Amino acid sequence: MSEQKYNVAVVGATGAVGEQILSLLEKRDFPVAELKLLSSARSAGKVLTFKGQDVVVEEATPDSFKGVDIALFSAGGDVSKELAPHAVSHGAVCIDNTNAFRMDPDKVLVVPEVNPEKIQEHNGIIANPNCSTIQMVAALKPLHDAFGIARIIVSTYQAVSGAGHKAIEEMLRQSKEILNGNADVQPDILPVGSLPVKHQIAFNAIPQIDKFTDNGYTLEEMKMVRETKKIMGDESIEVSATCVRIPVINGHSESVYVEFKNDYELEEVKSLLEKAPGITLVDDPASQAYPLASDAVGKPDVFVGRLRRDLTHSRGLNMWIVSDNLLKGAAWNAVQIAEIIVSNRNGRA
Amino acid sequence: MSEQKYNVAVVGATGAVGEQILSLLEKRDFPVAELKLLSSARSAGKVLTFKGQDVVVEEATPDSFKGVDIALFSAGGDVSKELAPHAVSHGAVCIDNTNAFRMDPDKVLVVPEVNPEKIQEHNGIIANPNCSTIQMVAALKPLHDAFGIARIIVSTYQAVSGAGHKAIEEMLRQSKEILNGNADVQPDILPVGSLPVKHQIAFNAIPQIDKFTDNGYTLEEMKMVRETKKIMGDESIEVSATCVRIPVINGHSESVYVEFKNDYELEEVKSLLEKAPGITLVDDPASQAYPLASDAVGKPDVFVGRLRRDLTHSRGLNMWIVSDNLLKGAAWNAVQIAEIIVSNRNGRA
Repeated sequence: MSEQKYNVAVVGATGAVGEQILSLLEKRDFPVAELKLLSSARSAGKVLTFKGQDVVVEEATPDSFKGVDIALFSAGGDVSKELAPHAVSHGAVCIDNTNAFRMDPDKVLVVPEVNPEKIQEHNGIIANPNCSTIQMVAALKPLHDAFGIARIIVSTYQAVSGAGHKAIEEMLRQSKEILNGNADVQPDILPVGSLPVKHQIAFNAIPQIDKFTDNGYTLEEMKMVRETKKIMGDESIEVSATCVRIPVINGHSESVYVEFKNDYELEEVKSLLEKAPGITLVDDPASQAYPLASDAVGKPDVFVGRLRRDLTHSRGLNMWIVSDNLLKGAAWNAVQIAEIIVSNRNGRA
Repeated sequence: MSEQKYNVAVVGATGAVGEQILSLLEKRDFPVAELKLLSSARSAGKVLTFKGQDVVVEEATPDSFKGVDIALFSAGGDVSKELAPHAVSHGAVCIDNTNAFRMDPDKVLVVPEVNPEKIQEHNGIIANPNCSTIQMVAALKPLHDAFGIARIIVSTYQAVSGAGHKAIEEMLRQSKEILNGNADVQPDILPVGSLPVKHQIAFNAIPQIDKFTDNGYTLEEMKMVRETKKIMGDESIEVSATCVRIPVINGHSESVYVEFKNDYELEEVKSLLEKAPGITLVDDPASQAYPLASDAVGKPDVFVGRLRRDLTHSRGLNMWIVSDNLLKGAAWNAVQIAEIIVSNRNGRA
């Protein structure tokens, strides 16, 4: 039996996440029949390469999805809201990296290490969670199954690549200017491209990612709250988050406090994480080993360490969770979902 | 009545904190009669200026403290342990910036906004707390008085200047190398000068400050636990900390979760912080205003913002606390103590 191949569209192909999706489809030897690279009108005409072949980027329109089997979206929420329904009407399954459909009760929100069974329940659109949520729930799932999570308090240390190419360029430009003795750099992208106030990101820490919501939390913080409940399938898990952008190019780090419903043993936590899929335990204080963003970049796993009993609560645990936000936090999670879709179809055939 | 003047010694005058102490003594017009700048043998002979006068740095020895009234130490714990007792025997009051005496039950540990009354109880040595502790307790004191703090969970975003000049130089050097395309930088100072394993700090986040202790927490984290209880004078306050070094030159940021014993109103929290000495409230989501390390540098205050009710506990509060770690976190706290000593003596005279 020859392997079935699929027509694949990548929407936002020239963006930071789109590039990684393309690279992963190639590296994983994803069964691509025809590949369509789509973008805004501004980036259309650019030429990218896939498996040694030049592919011209086309402007994404409602008609772009004729004959497409799987469409991977990462071109912003507005693009997904407009075009994903057209892709679905053409028969494509959409895997959407944006915030457009994540909390839609009719759409599934999937991290393959946590709730892969939801993929089969899709209505044409499968939402990929927010980067900061993915790495946290992937690490916490085996612990939730074992001890039951009552609540989570998380502080993030997020890389600028999560805000796209322009944010990376801004951070590098500001860093160069400061290193050259210009203390008064001009911020023009971060913290939020669409908001008026800009702050320096080089050699700084900005406690705002995405817009503020009415309760004083940012949208990024509320994504961690809502998405965690939905992915874990447990509305009883309480989450409070503080999301902070720091001058790191790639790789989100998170300081996570978890309070379990039941008693736990630290050795059991380590043993569960060692066996968990997609998790690498890096936790040896004696050799100063713990996860680092610089070590996580380019790797698909979620790295966990600094595991220690909380000093303020007997069922509390503190941990440090790091992952490449463009890979497991975005492109790799999406391609994993695509691989499971393909595997399910082949199984059915 | 002519103002009384004091012979002042600065031990570690060429270090990152020593420089700031010197600058503050000048700016504050501290009543200095004779100024002695002391250092290790390695730095002796350097010439610094004070109020337009050259002052030659001398090697610190037990005899350096003859005639000294006030000695400010920031040359490392070993130097303080060796020399502070000699300074005391010569009649000096020592204000010590190191970890040498902080948890000594016979020594007071002082943050002037929290426990200034302890200054009068000194036995010749007054310990200055750790930088990350000072800014946190200064911000939390008015809230503890009003609502009673049950527990604190804090994650820090600490600047490299806390590890001294060499750590700053290393971070800047690594940043330049990475910006010039050399991805493989050679770390040789951080995370801890005296430990064998080194990690890249440029464009990274290192979850280790100071050595590990037996319970899996680092010494920096345990300083925050123990010093908070001592300064607040309340052993019932529970603290868990995750201390992280990030690529910021100056200015520590902290994501702080506080759980009160009693109910609180957010407006009351804001009102208390607005009135608190040494605190500046920067908290307006509508105008994207919150404390930033880049804004705090060079200022004596502790900046507080991102105040919001925790979503997991009705008596929980989340906040973002930022301060210049070399000023309020070290030099300014020490000079404040020196000013109170002088003021008390003048009051008594």
